[in-house]
Amino acid sequence: MSIERICGGVTAAKGFEAAGAVAGVKYKDRKDMALVYSQAPCRLAGVFTSNVVKAAPVLWDRNAVEHSAYGQAVVVNSGIANACTGTAGYECCKRTAEHAAKELGIPMEAVLVASTGVIGMQIPVEKIIAGIEELAKVKSGDIEAGTAAAEAIMTTDTVSKEAAVQFEIDGKTVTVGGMCKGSGMIHPNMGTMLGFVTTDIAISKELLQEALRADVQDTFNMISVDGDTSTNDTLLVLANGMAGNEEIVSKDDRYYQFVEALHIIDETLAKKMAGDGEGATALFETKVIHARTKEEARILSKSVICSNLTKAAIFGHDANWGRILCALGYSGVTFDPEKIELFFEGENGRIQIYKDGAAADYSEEEATKILSEPEVRVVVDMKMGDFEACAWGCDLTFDYVKINADYRS
Amino acid sequence: MSIERICGGVTAAKGFEAAGAVAGVKYKDRKDMALVYSQAPCRLAGVFTSNVVKAAPVLWDRNAVEHSAYGQAVVVNSGIANACTGTAGYECCKRTAEHAAKELGIPMEAVLVASTGVIGMQIPVEKIIAGIEELAKVKSGDIEAGTAAAEAIMTTDTVSKEAAVQFEIDGKTVTVGGMCKGSGMIHPNMGTMLGFVTTDIAISKELLQEALRADVQDTFNMISVDGDTSTNDTLLVLANGMAGNEEIVSKDDRYYQFVEALHIIDETLAKKMAGDGEGATALFETKVIHARTKEEARILSKSVICSNLTKAAIFGHDANWGRILCALGYSGVTFDPEKIELFFEGENGRIQIYKDGAAADYSEEEATKILSEPEVRVVVDMKMGDFEACAWGCDLTFDYVKINADYRS
Repeated sequence: MSIERICGGVTAAKGFEAAGAVAGVKYKDRKDMALVYSQAPCRLAGVFTSNVVKAAPVLWDRNAVEHSAYGQAVVVNSGIANACTGTAGYECCKRTAEHAAKELGIPMEAVLVASTGVIGMQIPVEKIIAGIEELAKVKSGDIEAGTAAAEAIMTTDTVSKEAAVQFEIDGKTVTVGGMCKGSGMIHPNMGTMLGFVTTDIAISKELLQEALRADVQDTFNMISVDGDTSTNDTLLVLANGMAGNEEIVSKDDRYYQFVEALHIIDETLAKKMAGDGEGATALFETKVIHARTKEEARILSKSVICSNLTKAAIFGHDANWGRILCALGYSGVTFDPEKIELFFEGENGRIQIYKDGAAADYSEEEATKILSEPEVRVVVDMKMGDFEACAWGCDLTFDYVKINADYRS
Repeated sequence: MSIERICGGVTAAKGFEAAGAVAGVKYKDRKDMALVYSQAPCRLAGVFTSNVVKAAPVLWDRNAVEHSAYGQAVVVNSGIANACTGTAGYECCKRTAEHAAKELGIPMEAVLVASTGVIGMQIPVEKIIAGIEELAKVKSGDIEAGTAAAEAIMTTDTVSKEAAVQFEIDGKTVTVGGMCKGSGMIHPNMGTMLGFVTTDIAISKELLQEALRADVQDTFNMISVDGDTSTNDTLLVLANGMAGNEEIVSKDDRYYQFVEALHIIDETLAKKMAGDGEGATALFETKVIHARTKEEARILSKSVICSNLTKAAIFGHDANWGRILCALGYSGVTFDPEKIELFFEGENGRIQIYKDGAAADYSEEEATKILSEPEVRVVVDMKMGDFEACAWGCDLTFDYVKINADYRS
């Protein structure tokens, strides 16, 4: 049966509550702490950054995903990343979990933590403690509470990012919702920036982790804002089973329906993250079709959306397709440049820009029109096989440089 | 004996002449064609882009380096790259070589060609033909003629790039000189952007190619402006033997002296290219010491100078060292973040910024002072072994975005 998009985010699924609060961790006048809480214990799955340098909360959560029987709350702060902070950083995670456990009446092992912001600074723990007390007081299952949490985890993001879907299993309504934040140091690899997905489905821990790990390959791992893989990338899924379906323990039809729903949430959030990349004016999508293998399709599409030169041309609405061909050429995948074809696609149509080893006969005016849309798509036809992949990035703008030349001040 | 730096570039070595001319290939009011010519036939060596998409002149020159008995002239144009131009593009190379051969009285097989500029446009051949006639008329062995050639190959470069050294072999003075151009789409891989080295040394073709191929690994392949490996990267060395030394045919002391001289020229030109990267205000050097292997030292140092976030922080004179640690962490090399140490170095001193897994006790003011210099150096001590490598990049600035948002117009 069909999967329907609905309003909301992490509080959309049954039994989930959330809150956002002003804790003054680094920012002064905006929400900078979030809580996600489930009334019932949750199956837990997570994927984390592949960066050798891992932030303290990543180490904490990885341990929880591997060893805790269940999870029930996530405490997040923005402003300071708690990365490269030595033993004091890990101690901060521990005190955060201890205090949240006490306030919420759950075991310390069921509390996850996440941080995002400047690397290298120590978090003032007493502000976190005060923040937790406020969060525990105001948490609720309203849509607005989910949005408050999504706003509290933002750093240079310009909009909060949420998504939710509903479908039926065993005659029960199942909901999957999520939130995430960007928007710089975005080049996830086996993980992502901070993302939190909540669902009331009943599913085994192994299948939840497998579904997450597989889906990340085609969603969060296919976006890039600046090629920098963060020290804090974390994507957690909490499943509390409150939908009332019989627990999914094998790869039956119900499992694949959940996989599809999870994919919609992940892809929606990933695209929102790419489109709101630091300083971005456009979402830049590259779809590679007819590639020899899935892996080659991924490498080719990602190479294009990561090219600084191509990204600057998108900002300038300049149909400088040579840079796209160049980026395909240095991706590491071999192909015959004489055989492939390139297209620009947008709301206003589709035009062919390259074939037979040279420029196609297209109108620069029409190309510029397509490239001026808020969502720009390049389609690359490799003519080599049956595999395809999609990658999402954004344009490279003055504002990206501005944001990152003085981010700490 | 010692190697001495001298004035000049491609005309420094005996018997080499050069010229620059206004041909109007794409630019209207500036020199856009260059000629390098040797009075005697030259041993030829070259390395080229690893991009699958190779410009027509790259195919032409690669063939010449592999099959021609010798080389005697190089014709270069800026403005249009002659890449992704199909069979018409290769035909253009052929007609250029034919006409230059006729004008200079040498075989067509001894003429090399190179192009740089916009990808995808066809070169107006008649302008090239007229340009060759002008170049053949005005060529000379003066220092100024070398500079005119270096100016003619510039695109978004802000300064021309030349270097020359002299030393003695067998009681004879040997000279090595060169020129190159940047300054965007710079991320050489087994090749480089356009670079031309001339020398009057007598050396076998095999040893000349071997010396070049090895040296490029530590010079041109260690720079990056934007991570985009060009379709046109070409580095040629012409050796005409006019110094009068006995030909070098084995790896004796004389060979290693030449290797050292070539290294000085290559490193000098590569650093000039990085420091004059599109929009750059500073040369950004990263030196990795005490790495486990040479290859790991190269990967680590290059990862730092390629990080957009780090480059933007350098532009902002912001000691945001967390981004450096982050870039080391996602490089693909494994290490213990608690063990390594980071330093900033400049004319105004050296400070430690990271040790024992957290920030060292340094002065932000002093760090900002070092980061405000035109040459900024990061030293990374891996404490794992005996290998080191150096990589050169530049900062990421508003002007980089500006230059590349409307490069074609």
